[in-house]
Amino acid sequence: MDSNTLDINQENEKGEEDDFVDPWNVNSKSDTGIDYDKLIVRFGSSKIDEELLSRWSNVIKAPLHHLLRRKVFFSHRDMQTILKYTEEGKSFYLYTGRGPSSEAMHVGHLIPFIFTKWIQDTFDVPLVIQLTDDEKFLWKDLKLETAKKLAYENAKDIIACGFDINKTFIFSDFNFIGQCPEFYQNMVRVQKSVTFNQVKGIFGFGDSDVIGKIAFPATQAAPSFSSSFPFIFGNVKLPCLIPCAIDQDPYFRMTRDVAPRLGYHKPALLHSTFIPALQGAKTKMSASDENTAIFLTDTPKQIKNKVNKHAFSGGKATVEEHRELGGDCSVDISYQYLRFFMEDDEQLEKIKKDYESGALLTGELKKILVETLQPIIAEHQKRRAEITDDVVKQYMTPRKLNFTIKSDK
Amino acid sequence: MDSNTLDINQENEKGEEDDFVDPWNVNSKSDTGIDYDKLIVRFGSSKIDEELLSRWSNVIKAPLHHLLRRKVFFSHRDMQTILKYTEEGKSFYLYTGRGPSSEAMHVGHLIPFIFTKWIQDTFDVPLVIQLTDDEKFLWKDLKLETAKKLAYENAKDIIACGFDINKTFIFSDFNFIGQCPEFYQNMVRVQKSVTFNQVKGIFGFGDSDVIGKIAFPATQAAPSFSSSFPFIFGNVKLPCLIPCAIDQDPYFRMTRDVAPRLGYHKPALLHSTFIPALQGAKTKMSASDENTAIFLTDTPKQIKNKVNKHAFSGGKATVEEHRELGGDCSVDISYQYLRFFMEDDEQLEKIKKDYESGALLTGELKKILVETLQPIIAEHQKRRAEITDDVVKQYMTPRKLNFTIKSDK
Repeated sequence: MDSNTLDINQENEKGEEDDFVDPWNVNSKSDTGIDYDKLIVRFGSSKIDEELLSRWSNVIKAPLHHLLRRKVFFSHRDMQTILKYTEEGKSFYLYTGRGPSSEAMHVGHLIPFIFTKWIQDTFDVPLVIQLTDDEKFLWKDLKLETAKKLAYENAKDIIACGFDINKTFIFSDFNFIGQCPEFYQNMVRVQKSVTFNQVKGIFGFGDSDVIGKIAFPATQAAPSFSSSFPFIFGNVKLPCLIPCAIDQDPYFRMTRDVAPRLGYHKPALLHSTFIPALQGAKTKMSASDENTAIFLTDTPKQIKNKVNKHAFSGGKATVEEHRELGGDCSVDISYQYLRFFMEDDEQLEKIKKDYESGALLTGELKKILVETLQPIIAEHQKRRAEITDDVVKQYMTPRKLNFTIKSDK
Repeated sequence: MDSNTLDINQENEKGEEDDFVDPWNVNSKSDTGIDYDKLIVRFGSSKIDEELLSRWSNVIKAPLHHLLRRKVFFSHRDMQTILKYTEEGKSFYLYTGRGPSSEAMHVGHLIPFIFTKWIQDTFDVPLVIQLTDDEKFLWKDLKLETAKKLAYENAKDIIACGFDINKTFIFSDFNFIGQCPEFYQNMVRVQKSVTFNQVKGIFGFGDSDVIGKIAFPATQAAPSFSSSFPFIFGNVKLPCLIPCAIDQDPYFRMTRDVAPRLGYHKPALLHSTFIPALQGAKTKMSASDENTAIFLTDTPKQIKNKVNKHAFSGGKATVEEHRELGGDCSVDISYQYLRFFMEDDEQLEKIKKDYESGALLTGELKKILVETLQPIIAEHQKRRAEITDDVVKQYMTPRKLNFTIKSDK
């Protein structure tokens, strides 16, 4: 734990000057948002560079996802090892999750799931998805039953992303921990390996925090170990790859530190940037401030109105000035969102050129974004509406998944 | 929590001068052991007095157990309320437990179980018994599998006390918490209601303690709420009575403080004194120091040798002096043990008189103790040997118990 704790303590000391990033708050002083290169240095992770991407593409024998090509997933830990495993014909599994803070998820919440589905499909691996309703109950002023309900509603949105039902297990902590002694046992193993001083350094907990918060990091760590899911993995110790937003990294730095002492693999990680708020890149899109976000429940009209009204523009003050000087894509939210949601590289590049040259006006750029988002969200709503309680139950039942374990252990 | 925390903080401040009592350590500076009257004042509990005993005897329409008559159970919280419930024809349930620290339990460990069985029989109520293998794993340098094994072996000794299989559920945390979402949910409810500052004040935890210890009090609190066992109690909120040694009181002061905020009954308590070490009343009998204890696995010869060799004597230096001045029962361990294990009041009173007058010599007193303990332990061993894995499994399977709930809620 020592080296990681040091990193983090430095981070906290620097917190006043630099961007602030932890699992509960993300803030930047810059109009272009978080300086992700600095974050890589501070967190001690590795940059996803062209060499890694080219190797990755060779291993899967397929083109890479646009979220990788555009470095929305920009940082990693041990992804080289995961590619090596794959080259050697060995298996791994995927773990991602979500803290269900509101019934309506926003489009930013989809990013890790869209990307995780792509990894699942290209590597053909099993996936576990943790809904931390216990975390939300501990951190927010809400009833336990409400937290469970939110997890259930979020599960429907996640399922609507199209995960293979034969390879995906979704669970909420409040329901699942009471169904799996091995999961609780791994929680306590982690709880025995981490001191209050350490979680204080990593997460900034204080003496007046409730003991549930203090112990919670162990609950988010446990799914990183295949032995937490004996009904899926039996006795095989399988390595784990975790795609997540960079703000979740503190949990997994802690987990990676503890893993070898428990005789487990360190989980590998893929970190994404945040999708910025409509108002600009200083903060991330947030479900609790509804004007900052496009929700998965928004109507085409709401999407159009929100983008037109709130999306921060990198354009100039007048049409004449814009035509002459061009817009600034690095702060323009509509362009930034297109990086997340428009798949066609050439089209995106042309939009960038035209906007920066002044050929494309802010209103036109916003129209392109609106017309990109409307069908994505409409299709999501359609798929979500078709998900019955029975389907949710199938995904959330602890069961064997359909895959072949290839492992040397 | 405020008033309780204050009590405890005072206790910690006074700790240097007074007896030291917490769930992990018990020490007295006096040859007669802990000053239990002072402890009642410090802990803020109530003395079990003659008025309570007489009412109790009236309610159950039967004579009281010798452990009550002799004030081995000397302190309580809300026992009047439990008697009132019974008079009104309402139900309650019993909860007790054990931290399985060694395979071989000693005779002192039997005391709360012998007494709890008597309460179960006289009140005809259901009982849950928690084996905190997770606690032992967190506090001791042992493997998780070893802690589970110890819990299993201890369960056999507990079952050998003769609890009604139709009214008793025994569980170990590592096995059961993963079988009951409602139990985990109550753990997290308690975890949300208690801060690190509070457990620091109550249990003396520090910044270098592992987060598992810090969160553990919630795990010992959860069985105090009937909703943790829906398979037994359904939706009925039943009050709980906890017989335990006084060192466990800090857990339940915390629990009683939290209960009303969760909409649950405060658990009632019955506190026992400690059985002293063979070497004298300054410390309690301890399984981890084998010379201090008579084990449930000891042979008749070992019992005889241990008592003769180690049992601190209140007798005089020579036979002549003893005959003239008599012995001191208040420090004599053989006499003290007889208070726990000899049922006949008249016989015990005669022994006291004879020893104090000098008519009974130390060797003779030790012989009486040996001849009292040998059959108790031999019978325990016989009953334990008959307990098959299948019987253990029956007690430890979450299931309906056979009793009628009488409640106003």
